Amino acid sequence: MTELPKTDIIFGVFNETSSDEARVALTPDMVTRLNKSGVRCLVEHGAGLRADYPDEAYAAAGAEVGTKEDVLARSHAFGFVDRPDAALVQAMRPGLWVIGMLGSFTDEQYVEQLEKAGLVAVAMERLPRQLSSAQSMDEMTSQNSVMGYKSVLVAANAYGSFLPMMTTAAGTIRPAKVLVLGAGIAGLQAIGTAKRLGAVVTAYDVRPASKEEVESLGAKFLDLGLDFSAGQGEGGYARALTPEEQAAQQAAVDAKAAGFDIIITTAKVPGRKPPVLLTRAGVNGLHRGSVIVDCAASDLGGNVEGSTVGSTVTDNGVTLIGAPYLASEVATTASNLLARNVADVLVHFIRDNRLQVDAGDQIDQAMVVTAPGNEAKGE
Amino acid sequence: MTELPKTDIIFGVFNETSSDEARVALTPDMVTRLNKSGVRCLVEHGAGLRADYPDEAYAAAGAEVGTKEDVLARSHAFGFVDRPDAALVQAMRPGLWVIGMLGSFTDEQYVEQLEKAGLVAVAMERLPRQLSSAQSMDEMTSQNSVMGYKSVLVAANAYGSFLPMMTTAAGTIRPAKVLVLGAGIAGLQAIGTAKRLGAVVTAYDVRPASKEEVESLGAKFLDLGLDFSAGQGEGGYARALTPEEQAAQQAAVDAKAAGFDIIITTAKVPGRKPPVLLTRAGVNGLHRGSVIVDCAASDLGGNVEGSTVGSTVTDNGVTLIGAPYLASEVATTASNLLARNVADVLVHFIRDNRLQVDAGDQIDQAMVVTAPGNEAKGE
Repeated sequence: MTELPKTDIIFGVFNETSSDEARVALTPDMVTRLNKSGVRCLVEHGAGLRADYPDEAYAAAGAEVGTKEDVLARSHAFGFVDRPDAALVQAMRPGLWVIGMLGSFTDEQYVEQLEKAGLVAVAMERLPRQLSSAQSMDEMTSQNSVMGYKSVLVAANAYGSFLPMMTTAAGTIRPAKVLVLGAGIAGLQAIGTAKRLGAVVTAYDVRPASKEEVESLGAKFLDLGLDFSAGQGEGGYARALTPEEQAAQQAAVDAKAAGFDIIITTAKVPGRKPPVLLTRAGVNGLHRGSVIVDCAASDLGGNVEGSTVGSTVTDNGVTLIGAPYLASEVATTASNLLARNVADVLVHFIRDNRLQVDAGDQIDQAMVVTAPGNEAKGE
Repeated sequence: MTELPKTDIIFGVFNETSSDEARVALTPDMVTRLNKSGVRCLVEHGAGLRADYPDEAYAAAGAEVGTKEDVLARSHAFGFVDRPDAALVQAMRPGLWVIGMLGSFTDEQYVEQLEKAGLVAVAMERLPRQLSSAQSMDEMTSQNSVMGYKSVLVAANAYGSFLPMMTTAAGTIRPAKVLVLGAGIAGLQAIGTAKRLGAVVTAYDVRPASKEEVESLGAKFLDLGLDFSAGQGEGGYARALTPEEQAAQQAAVDAKAAGFDIIITTAKVPGRKPPVLLTRAGVNGLHRGSVIVDCAASDLGGNVEGSTVGSTVTDNGVTLIGAPYLASEVATTASNLLARNVADVLVHFIRDNRLQVDAGDQIDQAMVVTAPGNEAKGE
């Protein structure tokens, strides 16, 4: 029998479920995995239920299930799908660790709150995803992958025709023409899923490298006749275009869009207002019955002008679905992947059986945004 | 230029859309086709709108668009997705033709109403589908095919995990296990669609011939160890089992069901209460998060004990979707196929430029359920 590493670390997870959030930052499988690393797990009642992980499954895997107060009082580190709200931050004792999507790129005030509370804050959104050692921690990738898959199911379900070609005694149904705007992880997964369903798929991305990726999945790359070379931004994400470049891109996309039945937009840029890829003119040019799924829809706007969270039908009969919560809607799989990402981040910081920041470590340098009493900080 | 056949036939189509029905019995493409057969078309305002065929599209194809009263007053034959209600039947002049899903297998009173009104009634549900000349008229096949496709989209959309296997840096997601009960047209289409999406598919049907069909689509046939030979009923549909056979089948299905993530049931028997394939015990044996789509759900019950029209979640976390309206939810494609079926039936009855019943014709013998003043009758 292997001797378990000895740590006193208790990893706590709250019930974050809400009308928009069904995911959980820890799954029973990960309880087993963390136990092997010597980490004990403490889960708030009902935390996993909406993702189909009931309390009993956590208990069976070796976790304790308790109240919110238990989790708060006894844990050394907390894992979040999202991030703790201000009240919860206030309630946390100095020196505790918080791992989650902290919004640290845009919300400096929030990071200051974490710092004032004396917490060690690890921002999942700052993962240096190019490092091969970081790949199993890459929540952006895992959740965007789920989002891309689901975006096609949502589009196909809202569309009044078939995606695949169908030859019947009563005639032939042509396959749906799908356009995927933004060919990052979500876009590539959307391409793959739409191809699976038999659609004819075209995709576009500002990054020149994406043409090859798109074509390797059997989709056509949409040539706008525009050159945004050096379109690859920091950290492997697309960079923001200049206003002139954006306008040129919009005009070109609007013109091409009319030929498609389904448009899926996936251009989220972390911490920034999403770029408008399709304007109102483009939407108005689509045929009655066409469907748009805007995965970047938010209060700040989305990739499609006029998109809001939820489903609307335009005057010309286009169904426009603003869908920022798609990963949460595939909650079991999304949580499964996310929990692995978070658990691997947690384990990364266990050094000499304690949670510690190593100022010389690339992952620590990138992700630790507040570390009171410690020199390593991401900013 | 080909000279058009001369007929004075006006084919009228009402707006049948309701909360449950988005389909229409005539599409603009079929207007063009019928015009070539010398049939003029008269469509009620808005009849095709929910299927994304606006009035302008009908007009552009050469149809007239008018009020319900216009359609009623001037048409010689009417095409229906469903059937005219009693008030509409009363309003129709003797000698006019009605083509639709008349429910003639179960609703004798309704057929009597049609007869009393002096209408010639052609029942789409009575098509002799074995005849190769009838294939393009086969609405049961075309609509069940749409239903089978949609059943998988609905199931996949309600399911909290992926259908395909997915290998990621954060671990491997196993593919969903899908069980299709009833391997007729709808079941085979469901198998094909679930396979497209990457699920591992198993299927079952009482008809011995279906094993080969299921396996030819790459799915596994569920062996219940039961023999219902001569399971093939009249007209190519499954026959009804005896109560003893049903109970044995249910027990066997219930026992096997627990191993699946998604169950789709498609065993509609025209004009009869659908057979219960999965009992409450079977439903209770499924794991939390599993999804059932019962395409046979109705006021009379469905293939799954306890299913009702709409979506419910059982106490043990199983999502049970009763979905009899799935063809209507893919309204554009479903109408496209259905309109072709109805148009071909109409054209079949045009003889010497008039609508006539031929008592010697196999299709006429099967489908014409009332023909006042004419000898050919289906019953």
